[in-house]
Amino acid sequence: MGNHGNGRRSGCPINIALELFGDRWSLLIVRDMMFNGYRTFNQFLGSGEGIATNILSDRLSRLEAGGILTKERDADDARRTAYRLTEKGIKLGPVLVEIFLWSARYEDTDAQPETVQAMHYHRDHFLAAIRRRWSMATSQNDVRSE
Amino acid sequence: MGNHGNGRRSGCPINIALELFGDRWSLLIVRDMMFNGYRTFNQFLGSGEGIATNILSDRLSRLEAGGILTKERDADDARRTAYRLTEKGIKLGPVLVEIFLWSARYEDTDAQPETVQAMHYHRDHFLAAIRRRWSMATSQNDVRSE
Repeated sequence: MGNHGNGRRSGCPINIALELFGDRWSLLIVRDMMFNGYRTFNQFLGSGEGIATNILSDRLSRLEAGGILTKERDADDARRTAYRLTEKGIKLGPVLVEIFLWSARYEDTDAQPETVQAMHYHRDHFLAAIRRRWSMATSQNDVRSE
Repeated sequence: MGNHGNGRRSGCPINIALELFGDRWSLLIVRDMMFNGYRTFNQFLGSGEGIATNILSDRLSRLEAGGILTKERDADDARRTAYRLTEKGIKLGPVLVEIFLWSARYEDTDAQPETVQAMHYHRDHFLAAIRRRWSMATSQNDVRSE
């Protein structure tokens, strides 16, 4: 009855994305991967936002189910899981950049002026650097052939 | 202890924005104003996402407190309240456009190809049209002098 499958309330792309993200935690995990290069559970846990372990587990599963990240073995410690942004996840870069710039402009934040300027004036460069970082993560850290 | 005022967990601009938005409802209201030109409580209520009246009231108050929209008397019916996007609210346009484009690309949505193309290839045009619409709303519908 007007639902767009999966109990979604509309097929509007914005609604579907916001339902997929849920609360702020999912995008904070993507932020930690994209801007800080974090790849492991403990890194996410220590990112300073105070996420609880059960919420972190849940959001990592959702992000994996949503095709935004994948799991693999950590190259440094094969018993440990590492996470990698997929192409779909990397393509959230422009969303996070726009949120960052808007918030740095209108809210009282800890944003460094150099970072704001780099994002604002050299956006494509900034996004290309994120993409490069994740391609390097592929070649250096992946222990499974793909 | 490491909080950035207001119980926030970090001063990262992305975190601060995501805490301000909260769940998906706030950005859906901004979407309804920006893309559909909605300005009244009943329009938001009927937007097809099934928002409950108490949640709608709460999110409108939060958006007003956050400086994203303002309240005024409806020009057509002075007993009724109308809402207007502030400059800060209008500047969420690029955020919503990036979310729309990402979702239209990767998720199963109802996005019209023409809309996706207009946003993708004529982004500045598209954002300028939103700005124009809200300037017109000012001159035509505002009953209070500002």
